[in-house]
Amino acid sequence: MSKYYGSIEAGGTKFVLAVGDEDYGIIKTHQIPTTHPEETISKTIAFFKENPVEAIGLGSFGPLDINSDSPTYGYITTTPKPDWGGINLLGKISDELNIPVAFTTDVNASAYGEMVKTGLQDVVYFTIGTGIGGGATQKGNFIGGRGHAEMGHQTVKRHPKDTNFEGICPFHNDCLEGLASGPTIAARLQKRGEEVEANHEVWELIAYYIAQAAVNATLTLVPERIILGGGVMSQPLMLEKVQRYFIELLNGYVSLPCEVHDYITLPSVENNGSATIGNFALAASKID
Amino acid sequence: MSKYYGSIEAGGTKFVLAVGDEDYGIIKTHQIPTTHPEETISKTIAFFKENPVEAIGLGSFGPLDINSDSPTYGYITTTPKPDWGGINLLGKISDELNIPVAFTTDVNASAYGEMVKTGLQDVVYFTIGTGIGGGATQKGNFIGGRGHAEMGHQTVKRHPKDTNFEGICPFHNDCLEGLASGPTIAARLQKRGEEVEANHEVWELIAYYIAQAAVNATLTLVPERIILGGGVMSQPLMLEKVQRYFIELLNGYVSLPCEVHDYITLPSVENNGSATIGNFALAASKID
Repeated sequence: MSKYYGSIEAGGTKFVLAVGDEDYGIIKTHQIPTTHPEETISKTIAFFKENPVEAIGLGSFGPLDINSDSPTYGYITTTPKPDWGGINLLGKISDELNIPVAFTTDVNASAYGEMVKTGLQDVVYFTIGTGIGGGATQKGNFIGGRGHAEMGHQTVKRHPKDTNFEGICPFHNDCLEGLASGPTIAARLQKRGEEVEANHEVWELIAYYIAQAAVNATLTLVPERIILGGGVMSQPLMLEKVQRYFIELLNGYVSLPCEVHDYITLPSVENNGSATIGNFALAASKID
Repeated sequence: MSKYYGSIEAGGTKFVLAVGDEDYGIIKTHQIPTTHPEETISKTIAFFKENPVEAIGLGSFGPLDINSDSPTYGYITTTPKPDWGGINLLGKISDELNIPVAFTTDVNASAYGEMVKTGLQDVVYFTIGTGIGGGATQKGNFIGGRGHAEMGHQTVKRHPKDTNFEGICPFHNDCLEGLASGPTIAARLQKRGEEVEANHEVWELIAYYIAQAAVNATLTLVPERIILGGGVMSQPLMLEKVQRYFIELLNGYVSLPCEVHDYITLPSVENNGSATIGNFALAASKID
């Protein structure tokens, strides 16, 4: 008999649920708006009661407690999202369904999905959208000692033409997220990214900061590939700009495993679907 | 019968050799100036022929090839140091002595020594001296997918009072090493660090950059402790300044495992001796 795996992508605006087969092919998906935790979690549980699976991979928005030795393992911790701080997301779901649930961050799930899809063991995944997050694997395990990485908030140096913008991160002003996330476009130009022409200078600035994240990940984690997902990366030419700045900033200091076009890439799974594959694989790892 | 372990700290100016007992206590040490590779390596081999050990830990200056699947595993790769580029350091030593030799970077050896000494599994070690290097462990293994970390060359944001100094890194100008290594003091002030008063503003600038390295390591690797060694850290008050800027820059975004004074520390082994302990432990790991 075939095994089925479940995926829960727990996002700030919606929960995306999926059932997959042993080859991680998607059999069924369902979306739930993220409202009050009780309601959202009940609907999630109801879906998997109707569509039973062997195990679930749960990749969530955070910050999360992913330290399995901690008394608050499985909790969403300090999110500013109303009602969701201190919620035992993992416990409520796994207790009710009584199956193994692998628990990590949304971006770790994406990194894991890319790892499975590419067959590489050491990957870094950044999502550049409303916020910026980064997850990474090394020899098939997640990076992060006591907890999960928060690479979106690293410090970066200013683009020489971007000295007046303060940055929008409520914690750090001009960290990576504060200078390069999607909402920085509106903050700089008073219009949305979709309305900004492809040759506007703002894309250069953003590419420069994303390239630094790739440089720092290269120097710290020495991965086989760096994958860039999220809405900002759908801007035409953005990937090329990032690759160009990356080469310029790294300046040949360390060798890469391949050409930059194969080293810094868009996700190999379309429509930001890496997390679903990752969740299926994490679910499988709980029972294999 | 007691087992003895060997340590080789292969530095750019000297090789420090040591023999240790099973408790990693130092029984004998010997220093060799780093001259031509043939001469330096012969003297190293001669020392261990006179002082036999079961296995050796070899922590070297680099960059190195530490990927055991690589055809140039054990080589010093692209160092600007005359004659040392492309030298098979590991091979020459292990072939001649015919014992197991663990091979890693000098700063990884230091990180490993601190790990052993503190009993922690997830540590980051930065050395801030003539250059800046960083090594890290996670669950007792070294960070670094395809090779070793080069965290000293990460990008950092400028201190608001340090906008005119270009930086001295020949590859990147104003990376961490280019703004905060020991030689930046002479480049800024035309005198050596030892001659600069403890309340001079330059120490604030340097502390600000080192603090960013600690912030970025915290956000990327989520360690239990960050250890700062090397000559620059012997400046009085430097550690306190780094801790203060760290707290200011991180701004409570993620929780720490303990107070900052226990989280960002000087090495627990005096006189930059962490690498020796680390090498003994790495040697032991080759035969246990």
